[in-house]
Amino acid sequence: MPRPHRLAEPEIVAALLRVPRWARDGEKIRREFEFSDFVQAFGFMSSVALLAEARNHHPEWFNVYNRVSVVLRTHDADGITELDFALARRMNELAP
Amino acid sequence: MPRPHRLAEPEIVAALLRVPRWARDGEKIRREFEFSDFVQAFGFMSSVALLAEARNHHPEWFNVYNRVSVVLRTHDADGITELDFALARRMNELAP
Repeated sequence: MPRPHRLAEPEIVAALLRVPRWARDGEKIRREFEFSDFVQAFGFMSSVALLAEARNHHPEWFNVYNRVSVVLRTHDADGITELDFALARRMNELAP
Repeated sequence: MPRPHRLAEPEIVAALLRVPRWARDGEKIRREFEFSDFVQAFGFMSSVALLAEARNHHPEWFNVYNRVSVVLRTHDADGITELDFALARRMNELAP
């Protein structure tokens, strides 16, 4: 796989418009997900874990009960890449 | 189930001796787990999730790739209880 391309400022701004509820946080993007309970929250994390492992692109995430806080960045590119937005889009599709 | 009993200082000190690698952090206990990769780390989290849900006692945890940082406290008791040490012991058993 080619090394991911670190997105330039206008690319990041444009890409954020296509992933509702995700916000810029320096060289990362982040979103808070809220579910009805732990079973729903961990079920979501399990789905994302399968995607993340298949892509070899993993989130930084924090969970307490029904809340999951996710941060995405591309370590290899030292910034935000299309890999992050692709995973963000899939996470939005998986969340209720 | 009876409301969990908030442990007193000497009880906490004694209980910590029986859960290696766990440390006191104010009114919480915490441990960092390190695995060989994401598959192992998330497999561990999945096992713990089943236990946590069965006990209705859930961790606060952060994961990035092969690392899992766990904080345990008992919200209902506003402190550390035997529920936290029981889960900590099971987590130690599940970690390699």
